[in-house]
Amino acid sequence: MGAYLVFKDLAIIIVFAKVFGILARKCKAPMVVGEIIAGLIIGPCLLGWVQPTDFILQMAEIGVILLMFSAGLETNLKEMIKTGPKALLIACAGVFVPLLGGTLLYMCFYGFSAVGTPEFFKAVFIGTIMTATSVGITVEALREMGYLKGKIGTTILNAAIIDDIIGMIVLTVVIGFNDPEAQPWMVVRNTVLFFCLALVGGYIAYKIFKKVDQRYPHTRRITIAGLALCLIMAYAAERYFGIADITGAYVAGIILCNIRDSEYIARRLDINSYVMFGPIFFASIGLKTNIQNMDWSILLFSLGFVVVALLTKIIGCGLMSMACKMPTKHAIKVGVGMMTRGEVALIVAQKGMSVGLLDPVYFTSVILLIITSSILTPILLKLLYSKYPEDAADSGETAKA
Amino acid sequence: MGAYLVFKDLAIIIVFAKVFGILARKCKAPMVVGEIIAGLIIGPCLLGWVQPTDFILQMAEIGVILLMFSAGLETNLKEMIKTGPKALLIACAGVFVPLLGGTLLYMCFYGFSAVGTPEFFKAVFIGTIMTATSVGITVEALREMGYLKGKIGTTILNAAIIDDIIGMIVLTVVIGFNDPEAQPWMVVRNTVLFFCLALVGGYIAYKIFKKVDQRYPHTRRITIAGLALCLIMAYAAERYFGIADITGAYVAGIILCNIRDSEYIARRLDINSYVMFGPIFFASIGLKTNIQNMDWSILLFSLGFVVVALLTKIIGCGLMSMACKMPTKHAIKVGVGMMTRGEVALIVAQKGMSVGLLDPVYFTSVILLIITSSILTPILLKLLYSKYPEDAADSGETAKA
Repeated sequence: MGAYLVFKDLAIIIVFAKVFGILARKCKAPMVVGEIIAGLIIGPCLLGWVQPTDFILQMAEIGVILLMFSAGLETNLKEMIKTGPKALLIACAGVFVPLLGGTLLYMCFYGFSAVGTPEFFKAVFIGTIMTATSVGITVEALREMGYLKGKIGTTILNAAIIDDIIGMIVLTVVIGFNDPEAQPWMVVRNTVLFFCLALVGGYIAYKIFKKVDQRYPHTRRITIAGLALCLIMAYAAERYFGIADITGAYVAGIILCNIRDSEYIARRLDINSYVMFGPIFFASIGLKTNIQNMDWSILLFSLGFVVVALLTKIIGCGLMSMACKMPTKHAIKVGVGMMTRGEVALIVAQKGMSVGLLDPVYFTSVILLIITSSILTPILLKLLYSKYPEDAADSGETAKA
Repeated sequence: MGAYLVFKDLAIIIVFAKVFGILARKCKAPMVVGEIIAGLIIGPCLLGWVQPTDFILQMAEIGVILLMFSAGLETNLKEMIKTGPKALLIACAGVFVPLLGGTLLYMCFYGFSAVGTPEFFKAVFIGTIMTATSVGITVEALREMGYLKGKIGTTILNAAIIDDIIGMIVLTVVIGFNDPEAQPWMVVRNTVLFFCLALVGGYIAYKIFKKVDQRYPHTRRITIAGLALCLIMAYAAERYFGIADITGAYVAGIILCNIRDSEYIARRLDINSYVMFGPIFFASIGLKTNIQNMDWSILLFSLGFVVVALLTKIIGCGLMSMACKMPTKHAIKVGVGMMTRGEVALIVAQKGMSVGLLDPVYFTSVILLIITSSILTPILLKLLYSKYPEDAADSGETAKA
């Protein structure tokens, strides 16, 4: 059998991921950066202690599903609907400007290609990676300064959530269209069908879960039922609709985000995530990253990628905020607050790699983007707030600054 | 890639395992029985919805490692050393009488074979499965009656713990000797070497963990470090000493059972276990059980297996208790209390199957034993205690009965 052979890989991954995660946090970078670097070090790139075997990749896939489910569970649906139109507009701008920017960047480097060709979709995919904001670091920075519950803070938070959903839809459509056998109308039909069924089925599932939850609150069975819904939707999305499994898991999370035990489920599954599946997922990105093919042109591309990704968010979200009658000084804050990227960008990139839309060599660009944006955002926000403090008329709470 | 394909299997397993686990508990049987039955139903035996793929088997292996690690973590080393000699003697009798009984039973059915032949080790393995007491149900029954902390309760509990350790050593030796290329003295040398190294290395690891734990109590890093130790010891045991990986994990648990956060680690990993790995492990036993080869002779054997397994524990532990100057009426209670079997018997059986010492068809016997002993023990204990209540001189606390 030799099933025990996987223990060595697992032990190496979780230890290295944890150690480098802690080091990254000490350097004020997000922990995931450390975990990815751990994967780079122990993987075929450097030491070669751990290979990306089928088992590791399947564990990583469970890891990413759990992460997306958790993200869905933490969605505040009511708040999102309330702030509505403005956040939606900002989110749209925050998705489509980077999408366009990334596509054009790729085409500038590697030549323009006709709509519908494989090269075209590769270009669009570079843009797709740029779409999703990971607002965690912004939230942390705003909370520290006491501005999180202010008008700008709320706007950023809600725009970031909607932006995730739109980003997932874009990802779904891009992957769908890329399949050479898929008819464009089939992709649209499948996507619409999936979201309609998710709406109807999700409502029914929500009602059932709410009842079960009232009868058996804080139980193992509610956690397991939630996990089962996540797995089933992830599977069904990919198997029957050609939609990314992570989208399915994310929608499953949104379905359950309003039951009373949503936080309970999220906490239980987070333990699963951080102990084993999460580190394996992030380390697996490092394991799969191929720096052997790295050269100057890719390094240059990575620099362009980072600059375009950051600027398009600031410009897109900032201009749309101004269009929504926000003063320029505040609009810039929204733009800067929206420019952080994190797990979701990696998840999207990894998905693209698995369907052949992204060369593993570009993982480096994504990692560079995450590191840069994670370091720059808190610094810039602090500068902006100290220069243009949010006054009482703007803010929902008394600012400490 | 198709890594998402595993989601369907996982969803089916965890849902069925949970549902049947709850049903089993409603019928007063242990949950694991329900989980195994779930595996039987969804597996190739009946519906054929889930196949025991490599991935599922590897997940199951992680599951059993986590279970054994947890069992080790919950060991009360001090208590065990204190009650010392008497519990040790009872445990020895509780291991060797069933070991002998099981071996003879197999030989009665399938013919006597010379020492050292493969058939001989198969016979010994049937005895080995009978050795380990799973005292959970006894503890539950004694607690309900208010006799858990009495003299008899303490004796049973400690004997059961020691009996696990001796059982693991027996398992290790049997598997070691069975390897045709292994020299007998090599097996003994490796076993002794492993336990010596575990003692020395374990002491060092314990000291390090104690320090880390004092500095970072209740942290993720302590949980992950614990899990890493478990994985490394499981791997090293099997890879370098030819000792069962579950023994390594169990020893890792014992090493850490005295650090302050042992319970914290156990709780964290239990969540991992019950949400995913545990159900997969128990269901995988059902998945692998082969009832197609079931016939009357095996059914008859199973009945004999159950009777011998129960009687040898009662006789072995009971007589040894009497030899330790316990009155007969109490000695019988010890014997009955020790006769419950559970996870560990399954774990041992599964290990035997993976090294070719046990035909999958005998899983049915083990399952039958677990069900029978789980139902009989509480009933018999109740009868015995109401007929011969433990008086103040025997009991550490006032009995409620």
